[in-house]
Amino acid sequence: MPGLIQAHIHLCQTLFRGLADELRLEQWLSRRIWPLEAAHTEETVFWSAMLGAAELLLGGTTAILDMETVHHTHAAFRALERIGLRAVVGKCLMDAHPEGAPLELAESTDAALAEAESLARRWHGAAGDRLRVCFAPRFVPSCSGPLLRATSELAELFDAQVHTHAAETIVERETVLRTTGMEEIAYLDSVGISGKRAALAHCVWVDQHETVRLARQGTNVVHCPSSNLMLGSGVARVPELLEAGCRVAIGADGAACNNRLDVFAEMRLAALIQKPRLGAEALPAGQVLELATVGGARALGLEDEIGAITVGKRADLLVMDLRGPHVTPPGADPVSHLVYAACPSDVRDVFVDGRALVLGHELVTVSVDEIVREAGRCAGELRQRAQLA
Amino acid sequence: MPGLIQAHIHLCQTLFRGLADELRLEQWLSRRIWPLEAAHTEETVFWSAMLGAAELLLGGTTAILDMETVHHTHAAFRALERIGLRAVVGKCLMDAHPEGAPLELAESTDAALAEAESLARRWHGAAGDRLRVCFAPRFVPSCSGPLLRATSELAELFDAQVHTHAAETIVERETVLRTTGMEEIAYLDSVGISGKRAALAHCVWVDQHETVRLARQGTNVVHCPSSNLMLGSGVARVPELLEAGCRVAIGADGAACNNRLDVFAEMRLAALIQKPRLGAEALPAGQVLELATVGGARALGLEDEIGAITVGKRADLLVMDLRGPHVTPPGADPVSHLVYAACPSDVRDVFVDGRALVLGHELVTVSVDEIVREAGRCAGELRQRAQLA
Repeated sequence: MPGLIQAHIHLCQTLFRGLADELRLEQWLSRRIWPLEAAHTEETVFWSAMLGAAELLLGGTTAILDMETVHHTHAAFRALERIGLRAVVGKCLMDAHPEGAPLELAESTDAALAEAESLARRWHGAAGDRLRVCFAPRFVPSCSGPLLRATSELAELFDAQVHTHAAETIVERETVLRTTGMEEIAYLDSVGISGKRAALAHCVWVDQHETVRLARQGTNVVHCPSSNLMLGSGVARVPELLEAGCRVAIGADGAACNNRLDVFAEMRLAALIQKPRLGAEALPAGQVLELATVGGARALGLEDEIGAITVGKRADLLVMDLRGPHVTPPGADPVSHLVYAACPSDVRDVFVDGRALVLGHELVTVSVDEIVREAGRCAGELRQRAQLA
Repeated sequence: MPGLIQAHIHLCQTLFRGLADELRLEQWLSRRIWPLEAAHTEETVFWSAMLGAAELLLGGTTAILDMETVHHTHAAFRALERIGLRAVVGKCLMDAHPEGAPLELAESTDAALAEAESLARRWHGAAGDRLRVCFAPRFVPSCSGPLLRATSELAELFDAQVHTHAAETIVERETVLRTTGMEEIAYLDSVGISGKRAALAHCVWVDQHETVRLARQGTNVVHCPSSNLMLGSGVARVPELLEAGCRVAIGADGAACNNRLDVFAEMRLAALIQKPRLGAEALPAGQVLELATVGGARALGLEDEIGAITVGKRADLLVMDLRGPHVTPPGADPVSHLVYAACPSDVRDVFVDGRALVLGHELVTVSVDEIVREAGRCAGELRQRAQLA
């Protein structure tokens, strides 16, 4: 089958798994994620990306849209270059210092843009076009209008995606309304962040008229069901978004609010979570599988290259082993087993751009033992530096 | 760690996996489950139980409360005797012929009770007390008052549990109110189905005063979050049930409405699903792990024997291998990893009553290849007999 695509991931948070449970978004950011991101070094960003990419590849995800932290994004690219995952990666842009964020994460608008441009010159199209940049303003409350406008211009210039968060919580929605005087989707549009080039993670708190606007624009919405539950944010109205004609992808978000990077868990949850509200037939398995294939390809700006097995597309492929008891008997519809029953451990072989990265459930490009050992060491150091130990 | 316990399973539905997706409970029963259950033979019940038990053991579930179909329950016991899972099993009792149910599932009250009693004489305490019976009326709409009363008397007589469904959907709630003139929890109490001897699966649609009643009685509630989403039934108010002092366990229900029998998926979902309604701190990981250990032991009537590692309890044990990338880095709190990140494939060894059933991820008591082959063959035959092929 085609490789699965996750269009909202924070590889830099993989080392934070289990360190930020059971907090709502605002406390999760200020008490855990910002101190931990501020404590990152080149080395810890590298092994955080390696750890996340290993989990993703072993679990059948072949391409991601990623948002790193403010610094050290070169290190994430170097890890991805080595391990072989297809990735569209952006340095996190934030020039408005949000309440509770450490000084290490503050940058001027110019410095933020300059580094983003320098990353684009180095990495956009690298590794045989397997690596690309995106421009990744964190979210409206931590970005100035000029930064957001410049971001969308850089994306045009480099023919790249813009990757941000939008309408994740009711607090965010109200903050944006208060500070900009506009509803969030309209505000993002006013600074050029809309249309096929934009991928907005979450969109839990969008009204019906905003849904219509997102559909008309062709903006990509990235549904992150586990993360939205874990942080208590809510449930995105995905069937209504699809019904309105929106482009929708799926993603696990970061390991700090999930705590898996498991595309099978996200697909299953995306299907299940709509049914109490809309009926058992809502968001059927086939539609969910589209979110993780063609929907993801669109959000990454790669719809002509990945997301399906067809002449002219890249060979991003999975071989599933569906012989385990938990996927027996062979169903009338194999898509049902993929969405409702299959697990990462059912992924046998993984190819990206025709290159074997996982064979017989084993990662072949990097030693998993080394990744796990170095990630454990780096996580300990991070916790100490962030004074969470 | 102690073996995990699931207190609501239908092993006889394991062969129906993927054949009954995206239907609400009433259609799911009449269009799929009843025709398929009616098509069961001794042989298909045997391999359905084997398949489910293999998935459960390989995924770290060491004990279950099970409801079989109307006929052939001896075959399920024989499978469980051979594979080694701890199980409390009841033949499904239904003497009121519900709309849409095939004639093969109709039994007189006396015939149903006579077979249940005969099963109890043969199997209650069998295999060194590893197998027990429960008495398992399907649900109020398919059972007469005399059947339900006799069930609770038989349970007293044999010192066994009563295992039934309650308050799963709003339709069920309204049906019971209309036909009995009583609310469901009060009606069940009036026929003797309440207290520590009773395990009620679902309880999605219980009011506050019914919650208080369940707590006062000491009745076991079995939360089945995936099944309740999959069938569009709703979300049980587990934090409120616990707050009121209710005894709560967890279960995957059957593979026909889940479609996994994965206790890790149920634990994770149980924690996540409450947070949008009650906040990110609702139903934390430690409390969820209790549902799958001590909560399960209580629902099975085995609280003095299983559910914890302590002197005097049975050696139902797991060895987890938490070295994979998806459970790295080692968290500050290992319970977080178990509930939010771990998968069935992380279970390395499984012991029931001190006997090794899984070693190094391999089932040692029965050949998995044989189970998968026979289950596939039986499922094909079932689909044909039920005219779903």
